[in-house]
Amino acid sequence: MEVPKGHPRYESLKKREALLDFYERGIVTVSGLISQGRGEAFDYLIGEKSQDFALDAEKAAVARMAQSKRPVISVNGNVAALAGPEVVKFAKRYNLTVEANIFYWSKERIERIVDHFRGLGMDVLGLNQDARIPGLESDRGRCEREGIFSADTVLVPLEDGDRAEALKRMGKFVITIDLNPLSRTSRFGDITIVDEVQRAFANFANFDEGDCARLLKSFDNSSNVRRSIARISERLSSMKEWPEL
Amino acid sequence: MEVPKGHPRYESLKKREALLDFYERGIVTVSGLISQGRGEAFDYLIGEKSQDFALDAEKAAVARMAQSKRPVISVNGNVAALAGPEVVKFAKRYNLTVEANIFYWSKERIERIVDHFRGLGMDVLGLNQDARIPGLESDRGRCEREGIFSADTVLVPLEDGDRAEALKRMGKFVITIDLNPLSRTSRFGDITIVDEVQRAFANFANFDEGDCARLLKSFDNSSNVRRSIARISERLSSMKEWPEL
Repeated sequence: MEVPKGHPRYESLKKREALLDFYERGIVTVSGLISQGRGEAFDYLIGEKSQDFALDAEKAAVARMAQSKRPVISVNGNVAALAGPEVVKFAKRYNLTVEANIFYWSKERIERIVDHFRGLGMDVLGLNQDARIPGLESDRGRCEREGIFSADTVLVPLEDGDRAEALKRMGKFVITIDLNPLSRTSRFGDITIVDEVQRAFANFANFDEGDCARLLKSFDNSSNVRRSIARISERLSSMKEWPEL
Repeated sequence: MEVPKGHPRYESLKKREALLDFYERGIVTVSGLISQGRGEAFDYLIGEKSQDFALDAEKAAVARMAQSKRPVISVNGNVAALAGPEVVKFAKRYNLTVEANIFYWSKERIERIVDHFRGLGMDVLGLNQDARIPGLESDRGRCEREGIFSADTVLVPLEDGDRAEALKRMGKFVITIDLNPLSRTSRFGDITIVDEVQRAFANFANFDEGDCARLLKSFDNSSNVRRSIARISERLSSMKEWPEL
C-alpha cells in the first residue's frame, strides 16, 4: 500500500505507516497504536499543523531546556517511531540528555529503542535503570539516576498522566507534548505543547535561540492552553467537512 | 491489568481490552486498533453516551431497516469485537441478514468473524463472496449476492468512506455508524448515526417500534448531523478538563 504524494492526508498516513513498521519491529506496542489513533483525531481538530499556540509553547520550551542545568528528553516507542531524527537533531544542537523510558516496561523494547537512536547517531540512557520515580508502581517508576531521576527539567512527549504528575511531585519542571490540550498530562505541564511530536521536535531544532528566550519571559502557560482550546472549538464549529479518517 | 469498576473511564477501557483480545485472536487488524483510538477521541468529544441526535438517528434507522425488503447489516472485525451480542440481539428481533465484510480482505479473518457470530448463536453471510460492489478494487468490493449485493438498505457500522460511497452509487439506502460526524462515511449516510457501535446496537434492540416509525416520518438527516456538530463544538468550548486519555 503506497500512499500517493498528492493524497490530502499524505503526512498523516505516512506517520501511520511508520507506526506499523515500528510495531512490527517490536518498538511500538498495541497500546501505542491505539494512542496514535487518538492523536490522529485530535490532530484533525487542530488542523494538522503547528498553530501559533503550539509555536509559542515550543519556543518557551526550547529556552527553558537551554537554560536548565540538567535537562532530559524522555523518549518512548511512539516517539522513536514518529520523530527519531528530529529528537536527535534537537538534542545535539542543545547538548541535551535523552533517556528511553516506556510505560509498558520490557528490557527488550528499551534495548531496541536505544539501538534505534544509536543507529541515528546518538547514545541515549535507559539500559541502566538504577532509580525510581516515587509514587509509581515498580515498573512504571524505573529510570536512570543520571537521567530523568536527577533532571531539573524533563521534556515528556506522549507521556502518561500519572507519570507526568509523579515527575511534577518530584519538583521537576515538566514540559509536555500532547495533542489533547485537556488531558491530565497536558494539565501537569509547566509548559504544555499542543502539537504533533514530529512537528514539535522539527520546530525545536530550527528556532532562533534569542527568539525563544524572549518568548519565555512573557509566556503564560494557562492562557496559552486556553487559547488552544478556544481555537479548536472555533475550528470545529466552522468546519464543513473533515478529510477521510 | 484489571480495570477497576469505579474507574471514570471503565467502559472505554473495557472496550479497549476487548479490541486487544480480538486483535490477538486475529479478528481485529492493527489498522483496526488505530481506528479504535480515533473513535475514543471522538467519543470523548461526544460525551461517551448516546446523545439525543444519536438516539433520533438510531430510531429512524430501526424503522427504515424494519420497513426494507432486503435489509443487511455489514460487520467487520471491530464491530465483532465491540458489539457482537448486541448485533445478534437486534438482528434476531427484526429478522435481519448479517454479512461479515472486511476492508483488508483475508479468508481466515472472514472465517473467524463468521465463527464468532456462530458462537453467539447466529449464522452470518460472508464465506461465499460471489459478487462485487462496482467501482472498488477487487478485494475491497467482495460481497455476497444474497447479502450486501442485492440489499436495498445496508447498515454499515465503522465503514470506509470509499465503500460507503460505492454502496450509495449502487442505489442503496445507506445507514452509517461513525463517531466522526464529518467523515466521508458520515457524509454518504442517508441516515448518519454519530454514536459508538455497542451503544448504538444496544439501543436498536431496545427501542419501541412504533416510536421508531413515528420518528422516521419527520427525520431530516442533514439537520440532525448539523445538530451533532454544533453540540460537540459547544461541549468542547465548555469543557474544563477531559478524563485521562
